Amino acid sequence: MHPEFETYLHTHSTLTPDAIQRISSLAVKRTLRRNDHIFTAGEICRHKIFVLRGMLRTYSTGADGSEHILQFASETNWTLDVESYDKEVPSIVNIGAVEPSEVLCWNKADFNSLLTGIPQFRSLADQIIARNVYYNRQRMLTMLSATPEERYEDFVQAFPSFLLRLPLRMIAAYLGISIKTLTRIRHAQLQRG
Amino acid sequence: MHPEFETYLHTHSTLTPDAIQRISSLAVKRTLRRNDHIFTAGEICRHKIFVLRGMLRTYSTGADGSEHILQFASETNWTLDVESYDKEVPSIVNIGAVEPSEVLCWNKADFNSLLTGIPQFRSLADQIIARNVYYNRQRMLTMLSATPEERYEDFVQAFPSFLLRLPLRMIAAYLGISIKTLTRIRHAQLQRG
Repeated sequence: MHPEFETYLHTHSTLTPDAIQRISSLAVKRTLRRNDHIFTAGEICRHKIFVLRGMLRTYSTGADGSEHILQFASETNWTLDVESYDKEVPSIVNIGAVEPSEVLCWNKADFNSLLTGIPQFRSLADQIIARNVYYNRQRMLTMLSATPEERYEDFVQAFPSFLLRLPLRMIAAYLGISIKTLTRIRHAQLQRG
Repeated sequence: MHPEFETYLHTHSTLTPDAIQRISSLAVKRTLRRNDHIFTAGEICRHKIFVLRGMLRTYSTGADGSEHILQFASETNWTLDVESYDKEVPSIVNIGAVEPSEVLCWNKADFNSLLTGIPQFRSLADQIIARNVYYNRQRMLTMLSATPEERYEDFVQAFPSFLLRLPLRMIAAYLGISIKTLTRIRHAQLQRG
């Protein structure tokens, strides 16, 4: 039904072919153009989202129009606003496509029935949540302790392919530094060669 | 056995008295003096920790001796290094007492048996994890978007009682600002005050 997603589940879990079919059959595919949004701030996040192709970003916008990026989600990654989804309250963030993208969406009733009915799927979901918790903890430590140079270096190590896919302003908005500082860092690196 | 903890469980869940007794009976109480540590960086975090009295902080130390604080845990809050605990790998952080403290500790085998055997305890644990995920997401947005003044204001709103309990250098180390900046912010507030 969604062959790339089924391959992903097959590779990342020991789910049976039947379970994989059941999970896949409840997904609804959406195609997004660049700048299309899954939802914007003020709306409720009603889906768990798996990225098949492309890249989404989760971000808030300041009063001055400045963007602050919480997460990039590229192919074979999951995304959502967990608080809005869990509590069914308006989100304070937006999730939009950075590139033309294809995503799979599950509504809450369907996803919960899968988590309850398929313990191995629940395990996989728990693993993904845990990995996010570890990563966000590490990112917070980096925010607290590292220089802008070190933050950029960490980003390059963690997401080497993203450098070619993202505009500089988005990398700066993810690292919490100004585009001027980021430009200076990259210029210094090029000169060191 | 541990009456304050049992009151906490009674207030925050619909656990039966039997279940509460079972959870409480597997806890080991530890008394910490100020600056005593549960574990230090390089050691493995082997316990889930509930603070009965006092306050712990989770922090890393930079090469220059500077401290970066991930979390404060005061009475009736839980703490651990989740990645070290889950994977049984050396921690990159320390958990130490800011004040004389009393904590309850569960080892992993016992805690897992409680989670598996008592579905309502598992729900409570899931809720606590979710609340931490929401809070950390909000804190990251604040780190990315807010001025030092706004970060301090957020902290005062979220943890008003902590101002009297923590040295200024620790508040600065939690907010990711210099103690000089924090002193300036507080001085400006007092003058406006």
